[in-house]
Amino acid sequence: MKNLEQVTVVGVGLLGGSVGLALQAVGFAGRRVGVGRRASSLRKAMAVDAVDEVTRDIAKGVAGADLVVLCSPIGRFEPLLRRMAESLKPGAIVTDVGSTKVHVVRIAQRLLPKHVHFVGSHPIAGSEKTGVAFARADLFERALCLVTPTKRTDKAAVQTVRAFWASLGGHVQLILPANHDRLLARVSHLPHVVATALVHLSLKNDAIDLAGTGFADTTRTASGDPAMWTDILGTNQKAMVRNIDQLITELTRLRNRLKRDQLQAVCDWLAAGKQARDRWIDRRYRKKVLPP
Amino acid sequence: MKNLEQVTVVGVGLLGGSVGLALQAVGFAGRRVGVGRRASSLRKAMAVDAVDEVTRDIAKGVAGADLVVLCSPIGRFEPLLRRMAESLKPGAIVTDVGSTKVHVVRIAQRLLPKHVHFVGSHPIAGSEKTGVAFARADLFERALCLVTPTKRTDKAAVQTVRAFWASLGGHVQLILPANHDRLLARVSHLPHVVATALVHLSLKNDAIDLAGTGFADTTRTASGDPAMWTDILGTNQKAMVRNIDQLITELTRLRNRLKRDQLQAVCDWLAAGKQARDRWIDRRYRKKVLPP
Repeated sequence: MKNLEQVTVVGVGLLGGSVGLALQAVGFAGRRVGVGRRASSLRKAMAVDAVDEVTRDIAKGVAGADLVVLCSPIGRFEPLLRRMAESLKPGAIVTDVGSTKVHVVRIAQRLLPKHVHFVGSHPIAGSEKTGVAFARADLFERALCLVTPTKRTDKAAVQTVRAFWASLGGHVQLILPANHDRLLARVSHLPHVVATALVHLSLKNDAIDLAGTGFADTTRTASGDPAMWTDILGTNQKAMVRNIDQLITELTRLRNRLKRDQLQAVCDWLAAGKQARDRWIDRRYRKKVLPP
Repeated sequence: MKNLEQVTVVGVGLLGGSVGLALQAVGFAGRRVGVGRRASSLRKAMAVDAVDEVTRDIAKGVAGADLVVLCSPIGRFEPLLRRMAESLKPGAIVTDVGSTKVHVVRIAQRLLPKHVHFVGSHPIAGSEKTGVAFARADLFERALCLVTPTKRTDKAAVQTVRAFWASLGGHVQLILPANHDRLLARVSHLPHVVATALVHLSLKNDAIDLAGTGFADTTRTASGDPAMWTDILGTNQKAMVRNIDQLITELTRLRNRLKRDQLQAVCDWLAAGKQARDRWIDRRYRKKVLPP
């Protein structure tokens, strides 16, 4: 990050605020500028020292920035990119933290001028909570940070973005936008809608009142921001439809085994799932990617 | 618990061990006897002071017991009830901690002699972990403890079992076995198989390697004991089939909305799910039923 003198964070909530706090924690010596829509959010961001200065004027906020990190909901990216396009200096790099990448990379490449480089990012970090009050300097520590260049992406800009996330403690991995969206549909977007579906079913006959910590954990992500998640699902529709279909196939197979009393097959299926999950948890712990 | 001089715990794992530790913590002055199949488990139970004495002979273990708490997997209940039937003293009460109740209550009423009272229980507490090493004296503190008498159940025995769980810190609630199984299918057994299904889907193209803490939480219960869960699903098949069908209906509706770009409806659905879950978490915290 030696080459960065100004980092502008657009959207100073949980993720944007954490970028600011993490920069400070790792000794970033440049200016941290925060851009937001609401004066109250910007005041809070200043109060917790997430950024050095704030503005509601995005053109002003990104002027002079070496790196802009888009941390707003994906649904706001298009107007934000339009408004910042003319104010970015030549050679400026724009990245983001959005949970889908094909749509984001496409509009960024269309809306930003040639002399600005866009490199998509997706740090696998966050929470169902929202707002700068939940921001943490260590949010990206040991978190997988996916960076999604395309054939057209400037190589030096990719290097800068990789180094940026690595300096905040992330494990950086490159992946194509389309692969990203397909895989994340399966391990993030599908689990999210399943959690919501389980909550809806649990309301019948007040079954939810008998639920315990297992249910609380299984459905935790359902407490996430609905607008943010609508953006995510709306920009990954094809993969979502395919994954919901695959889940229905998997559940139908189990349903039929239960109905036919094929309990040994059910047990084998549960055991294979347990083994796969335990191995994954094990790998994550060894890499220290997940907190204990 | 003034009237209890001997409590025998059959199966000294996470739950059985916690019953023993909790009894000690609340100053139970009687004998805590542990019955188990493996000498190693019994040694461990003695080592952590979960029980006062142990035996592998169930007839010996339940002789003299005022209360027997069955903490073995449901699949072992039938042989255990058969073997203890002749050794239980008149007036002895048998309860359990099994996750389904219709099957358990039915076989207990059939296999135990008339002079012994069976009262089904299901404390909503536990973990995906197994073994006495994970037992905790406070496992039942503020936990919902469902007690499932039928019309035939002795009233005084129900009172004793209620008082027993309350003395260990539980919030006791009475419910009919059939209602219990229907409702728990929805908030516990269905979420469990959904978690396992998500793990299976995540293995395709190694998508699981991009998963974060959201996925870890959503699928936590999938790391539970496969044999124990096969027993649970196998004794609640009808409700499971119905609930899987309802979940498929819910997911199919979402799938079609996504396919038709009805994003406002998707957003409303996500928002309603979030609101319901947030309210539930709120109620649980106020009642202090869930740990923070």
